[in-house]
Amino acid sequence: MTAVKNVPNLLNSYRMQRLFPQGRAAIICPIDHGIIFPRALMRGLEDPVAVLNRLSAHGATGFMLSPGLVKQTQVELGQASHLSRVMALDGFYNLTDAATGIGNLIATVEDAVRLGVDCVKLLMPWNVSTQEKVNLTERLGKVVSDAAKWDMPVMIEPVLLGEPRSKEVIAAEFEVARIAYDIGADIVKIAFPGPDYTAKLVQELKVPLVIAGGPMTGSFEDAVREVRDTVAAGAQGLIVGRNVWSREPAEAERMMAELNRIARENYVAR
Amino acid sequence: MTAVKNVPNLLNSYRMQRLFPQGRAAIICPIDHGIIFPRALMRGLEDPVAVLNRLSAHGATGFMLSPGLVKQTQVELGQASHLSRVMALDGFYNLTDAATGIGNLIATVEDAVRLGVDCVKLLMPWNVSTQEKVNLTERLGKVVSDAAKWDMPVMIEPVLLGEPRSKEVIAAEFEVARIAYDIGADIVKIAFPGPDYTAKLVQELKVPLVIAGGPMTGSFEDAVREVRDTVAAGAQGLIVGRNVWSREPAEAERMMAELNRIARENYVAR
Amino acid sequence: MTAVKNVPNLLNSYRMQRLFPQGRAAIICPIDHGIIFPRALMRGLEDPVAVLNRLSAHGATGFMLSPGLVKQTQVELGQASHLSRVMALDGFYNLTDAATGIGNLIATVEDAVRLGVDCVKLLMPWNVSTQEKVNLTERLGKVVSDAAKWDMPVMIEPVLLGEPRSKEVIAAEFEVARIAYDIGADIVKIAFPGPDYTAKLVQELKVPLVIAGGPMTGSFEDAVREVRDTVAAGAQGLIVGRNVWSREPAEAERMMAELNRIARENYVAR
Amino acid sequence: MTAVKNVPNLLNSYRMQRLFPQGRAAIICPIDHGIIFPRALMRGLEDPVAVLNRLSAHGATGFMLSPGLVKQTQVELGQASHLSRVMALDGFYNLTDAATGIGNLIATVEDAVRLGVDCVKLLMPWNVSTQEKVNLTERLGKVVSDAAKWDMPVMIEPVLLGEPRSKEVIAAEFEVARIAYDIGADIVKIAFPGPDYTAKLVQELKVPLVIAGGPMTGSFEDAVREVRDTVAAGAQGLIVGRNVWSREPAEAERMMAELNRIARENYVAR
Amino acid sequence: MTAVKNVPNLLNSYRMQRLFPQGRAAIICPIDHGIIFPRALMRGLEDPVAVLNRLSAHGATGFMLSPGLVKQTQVELGQASHLSRVMALDGFYNLTDAATGIGNLIATVEDAVRLGVDCVKLLMPWNVSTQEKVNLTERLGKVVSDAAKWDMPVMIEPVLLGEPRSKEVIAAEFEVARIAYDIGADIVKIAFPGPDYTAKLVQELKVPLVIAGGPMTGSFEDAVREVRDTVAAGAQGLIVGRNVWSREPAEAERMMAELNRIARENYVAR
Repeated sequence: MTAVKNVPNLLNSYRMQRLFPQGRAAIICPIDHGIIFPRALMRGLEDPVAVLNRLSAHGATGFMLSPGLVKQTQVELGQASHLSRVMALDGFYNLTDAATGIGNLIATVEDAVRLGVDCVKLLMPWNVSTQEKVNLTERLGKVVSDAAKWDMPVMIEPVLLGEPRSKEVIAAEFEVARIAYDIGADIVKIAFPGPDYTAKLVQELKVPLVIAGGPMTGSFEDAVREVRDTVAAGAQGLIVGRNVWSREPAEAERMMAELNRIARENYVAR
Repeated sequence: MTAVKNVPNLLNSYRMQRLFPQGRAAIICPIDHGIIFPRALMRGLEDPVAVLNRLSAHGATGFMLSPGLVKQTQVELGQASHLSRVMALDGFYNLTDAATGIGNLIATVEDAVRLGVDCVKLLMPWNVSTQEKVNLTERLGKVVSDAAKWDMPVMIEPVLLGEPRSKEVIAAEFEVARIAYDIGADIVKIAFPGPDYTAKLVQELKVPLVIAGGPMTGSFEDAVREVRDTVAAGAQGLIVGRNVWSREPAEAERMMAELNRIARENYVAR
Repeated sequence: MTAVKNVPNLLNSYRMQRLFPQGRAAIICPIDHGIIFPRALMRGLEDPVAVLNRLSAHGATGFMLSPGLVKQTQVELGQASHLSRVMALDGFYNLTDAATGIGNLIATVEDAVRLGVDCVKLLMPWNVSTQEKVNLTERLGKVVSDAAKWDMPVMIEPVLLGEPRSKEVIAAEFEVARIAYDIGADIVKIAFPGPDYTAKLVQELKVPLVIAGGPMTGSFEDAVREVRDTVAAGAQGLIVGRNVWSREPAEAERMMAELNRIARENYVAR
Repeated sequence: MTAVKNVPNLLNSYRMQRLFPQGRAAIICPIDHGIIFPRALMRGLEDPVAVLNRLSAHGATGFMLSPGLVKQTQVELGQASHLSRVMALDGFYNLTDAATGIGNLIATVEDAVRLGVDCVKLLMPWNVSTQEKVNLTERLGKVVSDAAKWDMPVMIEPVLLGEPRSKEVIAAEFEVARIAYDIGADIVKIAFPGPDYTAKLVQELKVPLVIAGGPMTGSFEDAVREVRDTVAAGAQGLIVGRNVWSREPAEAERMMAELNRIARENYVAR
Repeated sequence: MTAVKNVPNLLNSYRMQRLFPQGRAAIICPIDHGIIFPRALMRGLEDPVAVLNRLSAHGATGFMLSPGLVKQTQVELGQASHLSRVMALDGFYNLTDAATGIGNLIATVEDAVRLGVDCVKLLMPWNVSTQEKVNLTERLGKVVSDAAKWDMPVMIEPVLLGEPRSKEVIAAEFEVARIAYDIGADIVKIAFPGPDYTAKLVQELKVPLVIAGGPMTGSFEDAVREVRDTVAAGAQGLIVGRNVWSREPAEAERMMAELNRIARENYVAR
């Protein structure tokens, strides 16, 4: 067999092209925290539509939304029609005690298709009970099957819920990413595992990788350096929510400007 | 009951908002002629993707496409993600002899949803046999029913196929527009009937009205004046294909610039 | 919008990749004539499985088969597992009098999927009555819709049945190819229209074009030159049936060897 | 009743013929471990597409893949179109503690048919709870029912998860193979039970038997002898994954060469 | 109303007539034990196709088969076309501990129809938990409903799993038979309850009653006497498996000869 360039399954589809503008990394802002985050942990996102309006003017290429937000922002995002929309299908998760956590789906692929979004997104928490792993993988597989009928990309996010960002946790999430891939994820989302793991995931899994920054920790400069390393290591997109909307407006704006510069200058096409 | 502002059914939906950018008339370029037009009548559209690439850079807000074109331009239009897409569902029509003309559907609303388009579009030729009127209205009703399940806007175009643009023909098409409205059209498309009929349709039907210019006849100035009258009379969108892509590139570009100026300056919000 | 390389919809799918081996033009041998050809017009194909066994050993990359042949050659072609299979879905056509011809479908996309073939194929005869055009385009659209749900490529063949290969007929078939594209063909098959029309079709339609040689006319050298022109003009595949299996075995073998040489040496990747 | 040669149900179907090339034992390389194996247990398979490219050039007749891998390798395996593809439908299993293990399905037969694979494959772990046995046999039966509608072969693998390869475990797996057969397996896959059990299974069950080598233990010579015994005892296929891809490239290549020699020389047609 | 002869629902249907040859009791040999019996309890049935070939030559009127066996014996039993086939739909049951036993279905009525069998058969174990009784009767009802659409007879077997053949157990199974009848069994299968209960069941339920002999216990003469009593009491069929295939070939042959004599001589038409 001659060497053939591998092109992930849906990459040439309309929705995938909307999600990943050429020549740059995507910047997708998640504002879907309302379903599982207490108010105290999502300071700045009390009024999600206000956040959406502010960030869409400052360089986001898309948003990650709950089903309710997708419904209620059709005018805003229909007018800002260049922005992609990723819809989270997950329902309840026990955020702080994964061992007893049991997940579910609160929306279907058919909902996503009807609402015209570009991608569906699912959490894949792996520090859960055996029974929950069984249910979880079955749910993920069902969504992947359904999505295939509608050319709808599926983003899966391996995660150890409620764990500190230790080396062990990062290594574990890195491993779970492979399960997500084998189940059939079109896009893998992962909390920034450092440039080496990022490069490995890009090389081994080949489907577009998007990296989440997580909560605002450390300085502006630390956050920016982390993003630069991520993009340089081959990530095709950045998921930046709390790191932007939990900052003061002026600093959030400066952060978005910086992210956009990196998303273009440090980008490596795959 | 206090007076309540009438808002057409789907107007606040994501797809309708994509179709109609605020503060201006939409400019939707049809390049779907391949299904029923002979090559001699679509000079300039021989390579439809080339036309699409050229016009998308010069101010179109969307395109009207055949199912085949929707399939084959997912990369181009996924990258130009601000542009709306209207998919024609019609198949064969006898263009020059409506009396023997019999229509059909070559694609479904489900296809449109899967492909992620913003609107489906149907011809409604009325100078046909009684039997064909029966079949036609049944097809239109079926599409309206199906589309409702998916929040997919339906654009219907009343037309007398192959007839000269006489006063009688214009009056007849004006009448058929009402049938389209009563069947459940979300958007009515009609060949320019003059400013008075345009204003009447806007007033009586309330759903967004989009006006087609038809073939390139008369001078550049005549065409521009016609468009200005249309927009000033309340049309929410312009369907301009042959009037642009059948002109020389430089003149086509000048025409698009002019249309965009009018679409903003003469626009009347409804 | 930056210029983006257009990749036809299904091109990266498993079935399309099977149909089009990289670095060469495909050579697909049709042996599906039994449904509409009288015995006198398919001399050499009396025993289709024998033809299949002979040609599969001499460089065919695939076969075009009737539903019955697909059923009955599962062992032969399952063992020759590198060969692609295209299944014709058409039923009856009046071969010699198109005006009275009425077509139909004798098999479904679901049959094709169950049998594991790589492509479905449909005739698109255009010198037919208005009513038949209506039925035909509706059938084509239905197959395109169904096929999309199963990632099954659709090959459509515009043709003027029973007409001599005059300049007018060739020009007419060239025009009908555009209708096939707008309906949603993934692959267009056409009787060799000369290198200029071939180049135009390749440029304008972009989906893979495969060229049929038709009946054995003229000398060996003429046939070979025609094929070379076709491949050099950008055709991605050759449909060669009668031109091979109606020749004497030794000459047929020499022809296949020659076709394979051209398919590699004169091939232009698209 | 005269003696009639027994031919298992789907044996003459296209997919079964692709899976079992004539005159030799099939060599199917599993690279689907990502779903249930930790990274430490699948050293060498970190980049599954790289493994696939390497092994497909050295004599594999097919691959066993997760749903995700089937999606993402359509270009590679569509170009290597002679290679068969077996898709695992299983989701999560607790690899080391079968008693708490609960399985599920993450993909459907319809997915398999759409993706064009040649076989679906299911684990059948039998050292599980009564409730899980009930669920498991129901899942297996459902897949057998669904597959029958699409002529899709079903491979079932009886196994005692996490047990050492003791005489008792081997005897137990041998017994479970019969349950797999009675449920309707078209192909039985089993970890090498020694030549005597292999011969018995071949004699009693008659459906094609494929033998898995499991992890790389013992010397090269031991592994080769085991394979020779297996093939001589009537196995129709070898499932060799870890025994190849976890070795050094040069040794892996030597192993594949040796396996291919045995697969031809020691093969016994059934 | 004049007295009308009661004819059970499907009795005059093709399949029921195949199951019950006129003028004699049917002799149906079950060889479906593989799904729930350990190898030690089905000595003689290790190679089920060999058993089938042997018994079909010695007077069986039909076989009771697992779904897998039905699939894999199409040639043998298609050639021995006078033999009826009863397909068991049950999956797993805990054979020795009914209290924890939970049943399921591993095949559907549609499978049975596709495979062309004459009857579907279900266990009805009644020494189970209340919850399992609920599930069981629901499954039975579902199969009865499905079967009605396809004119497929349903045989139900009331049983107390794992219990000794005490008077109480026999009385209990006799009672459960009535539940089977009220659920809609077309045929009731029951372990031999003695001639009095047999006569009562025949009189009260009227649907054909078939009697199972169970494992080989006691002498040849005891077994024969039991069968004679059964037939004389009005049973329409005998289910004899272990009592035949677990004996030495010569004795098995003698047993079949004896059974056939009784089935004709002692038969009472209903």
